[in-house]
Amino acid sequence: MGEKGQAVSKEITPQSENFSRWYLDTIRKADLMDYAPVRGCIVFKPEGYELWERIQGAMDRRFKETGHRNAYFPMLIPESFFQREKEHVEGFSPELPWVTEVSGEKLEERLALRPTSETVIGYMYSKWIKSYRDLPVLINQWGNVFRWEKRTVPFLRTSEFLWQEGHTAHASEEEARRETMRMLEIYREVVERELSIPVWAGQKTPSERFAGAVDTYSIEAMMKDGKAVQAGTSHYLGDKFARGFDITFLDRDNQLKYVHTTSWGASTRLIGAVVMVHGDDRGLAVPPHIAPTQVVMIPVGPMNQRAAVLERIDRLAAALLDAGVRVRTDLREETPGWKFNEWEMRGVPLRIEIGPRDVERDQVVAARRDTGEKTVLPMAAVVASVRDLLEAIQENMFHKALLFREEHSHTDIEGIEGIKEHIAHAERENGIAGWVLGGWCGAAECETKVKEETGFTARNIPFSPPVRKDVCICCGRGAAHTVWFSRSY
Amino acid sequence: MGEKGQAVSKEITPQSENFSRWYLDTIRKADLMDYAPVRGCIVFKPEGYELWERIQGAMDRRFKETGHRNAYFPMLIPESFFQREKEHVEGFSPELPWVTEVSGEKLEERLALRPTSETVIGYMYSKWIKSYRDLPVLINQWGNVFRWEKRTVPFLRTSEFLWQEGHTAHASEEEARRETMRMLEIYREVVERELSIPVWAGQKTPSERFAGAVDTYSIEAMMKDGKAVQAGTSHYLGDKFARGFDITFLDRDNQLKYVHTTSWGASTRLIGAVVMVHGDDRGLAVPPHIAPTQVVMIPVGPMNQRAAVLERIDRLAAALLDAGVRVRTDLREETPGWKFNEWEMRGVPLRIEIGPRDVERDQVVAARRDTGEKTVLPMAAVVASVRDLLEAIQENMFHKALLFREEHSHTDIEGIEGIKEHIAHAERENGIAGWVLGGWCGAAECETKVKEETGFTARNIPFSPPVRKDVCICCGRGAAHTVWFSRSY
Repeated sequence: MGEKGQAVSKEITPQSENFSRWYLDTIRKADLMDYAPVRGCIVFKPEGYELWERIQGAMDRRFKETGHRNAYFPMLIPESFFQREKEHVEGFSPELPWVTEVSGEKLEERLALRPTSETVIGYMYSKWIKSYRDLPVLINQWGNVFRWEKRTVPFLRTSEFLWQEGHTAHASEEEARRETMRMLEIYREVVERELSIPVWAGQKTPSERFAGAVDTYSIEAMMKDGKAVQAGTSHYLGDKFARGFDITFLDRDNQLKYVHTTSWGASTRLIGAVVMVHGDDRGLAVPPHIAPTQVVMIPVGPMNQRAAVLERIDRLAAALLDAGVRVRTDLREETPGWKFNEWEMRGVPLRIEIGPRDVERDQVVAARRDTGEKTVLPMAAVVASVRDLLEAIQENMFHKALLFREEHSHTDIEGIEGIKEHIAHAERENGIAGWVLGGWCGAAECETKVKEETGFTARNIPFSPPVRKDVCICCGRGAAHTVWFSRSY
Repeated sequence: MGEKGQAVSKEITPQSENFSRWYLDTIRKADLMDYAPVRGCIVFKPEGYELWERIQGAMDRRFKETGHRNAYFPMLIPESFFQREKEHVEGFSPELPWVTEVSGEKLEERLALRPTSETVIGYMYSKWIKSYRDLPVLINQWGNVFRWEKRTVPFLRTSEFLWQEGHTAHASEEEARRETMRMLEIYREVVERELSIPVWAGQKTPSERFAGAVDTYSIEAMMKDGKAVQAGTSHYLGDKFARGFDITFLDRDNQLKYVHTTSWGASTRLIGAVVMVHGDDRGLAVPPHIAPTQVVMIPVGPMNQRAAVLERIDRLAAALLDAGVRVRTDLREETPGWKFNEWEMRGVPLRIEIGPRDVERDQVVAARRDTGEKTVLPMAAVVASVRDLLEAIQENMFHKALLFREEHSHTDIEGIEGIKEHIAHAERENGIAGWVLGGWCGAAECETKVKEETGFTARNIPFSPPVRKDVCICCGRGAAHTVWFSRSY
């Protein structure tokens, strides 16, 4: 039995037993995905895809409000394009699938399935941008990308995934850097407000930079196994791609200059993050803002008194729909208890139960997925109450996740030995190692040593760390940065 | 000079001189697209992509209202999958690009870039569908597809394009056929109401069927050069893919049966159709429902009296935005005349001019893109008037297109010689051959002969032809069907 006496689905491995198994059980049982017949690819089933549609909606609206427009560039990228930015080709070559033939004929030049589109977009921008009057260019693209990685995890790391990639060009470094930060802030806002996932915004260390970037920034989220997920990245690319693709403009001072570019992306891995941040041993838990179904209504009580109940359910469903609430009713033949478990497992934020006594008393019973709490709502106020409850759930899910993150963030561990002891202790107790905040002198060797000896990697250098660390967690010299270290997906 | 004394852009070839050149000039000048560095691929620039976003919105809403949900299946399809439906592989093989290697390693089985997804979706449906309780399955996918065709035309036929493909599975033929028709009707509604393009809904002849379909239905639209564009297709696939992929279900009668499937698609070629149906020698003309910009406001009159004008424009822009009108203001330094041409060329449905005299008289001047008419609107009623005008333009564009289609539809031409004379006459007069309604006996040879001798192909067998033809236009025997014949894209 789970907390508050609710039955736990027998078909989901408990998180504490095996978190990876729990994750795979949950996304299958909640019908979010299926494995596809191509290595490392998944099918986004309707329940999973609708989460993505709602994340898309939340982002797309904000992109447009800040002056960006969508466009679509070709998916196939000529091999020669990758050569034009040295770090970029080194970063992505190992993961590229290649089209080499079309209907029996070999192509003269191989075409890569895009892993990201800086190159082909850079090529087009060099044709479009001539003068300072053409700047800034603020374009976003929604589409599929390919990265053939060795180890795949559904949603988090798959051979093909869906994402958006923004690509902007500016007249000055200052403006491009402002754009880089603005988009990171939009990611933070969407992930925290709409997905109820608290994140640390910060800068990536050089070793974790996007291939070809001057500076990479990220938002990082803690999963319930203590590992980190990079939930969005924003890159200041300087004039590196501008030089590679000759993107120049005639400035007001009549000088020909390179533009400064940015790129920023967020992907379907956010679906995986939602599952791993909010899910529990009963299955999925979806924040109301992005839930395909926000409220499920289930009739209870003896079948021979159902007519009045069903009439009440119909009326309430219509009223909730009118109020913009995504509601469904479950009138199947299964028992109420079976249905309760089913919809909890699928993560629906709020359940409404109506039985003959509730009809008599002109009320309904509302049960929250996040706390298990049941509340009696008088019919007269039910629509307003449901909306309030959904907002309260949205908030509470964020605060639960924040609390979890705080409990598993360690700011007082010193030295590599300290990290190792901490991890060993967590393993002994079958606990969660979580994240460690450490000073870093800035030397690549120190970062590598932490990684090799502990398995923890630098997630990012948070802009506003909870405390500033004075000494490097590896070498003990003075720290130039304060860094979150953890295992990551 | 164009009609009503408006200047014609010198940079767009007149339609009557060379329609293809007019089309290519228009889509480039209106900034809808650019050529990509990969054979037959284009870039959908923001102005073009936004047309697609609005078409998507109109369709997606209707798909969801009829119970469909979106999902996403992998883009790469194993070669063996194509073999499972014989006609399907024959139809698509000549156009397939193949992924044969990943980061230097040759794949054991080649992977095709999807030309359409019946095969991979059929494979998944065979895993998902077990019982009549699992039916119907009503899924749609938005994505990119690849068909490497010899001759490409931007939007209408490109190596990569964007589309939606619906794939449904049903317990009975009757239900599947109803679905096929329902989706065709949704296409008709979207294209006629939102794109202001009149279409003929009907059945494709067997030679024009989708590879692997039992029956294919289409909506067909007439372009301003008289050629046809297939604007959407809906297929009843019978149990052909169910047999190929073993999609069976246990029916209520405890018998194992094959499902009946449908598929239906509409693509970014609709952007090309909008251009070719509504455009004229001044450039693009976009129906208000899908126009990225519905109203452009331009200040006129002497610069030294501009302050009051600009204040008025700001106020009106805010009021229109509030009312949900997509409005923009053009305050650039160019002359009003230059701006008028520019926005006409870009197809904005309504222009509002405001000068000092208009401020004095508390009015604005509205100029329609579709008719060139100018109307004086009193400020007090301007928001309501603009909305009415936009609806009137939407309607009028449909009726203009309908009138054009009627003028170029010929129902009284008999015999192949009749078609040939008709075409020769049109060519002599530098006119438009348009469409010919003809009887057809149903023999494939007759259809082929019409095609070979005239270049006209069977577009579809309209459900409600303007008249029914009694004799085959080729052999003179009794007609089984009445068919629209024309040249097509």
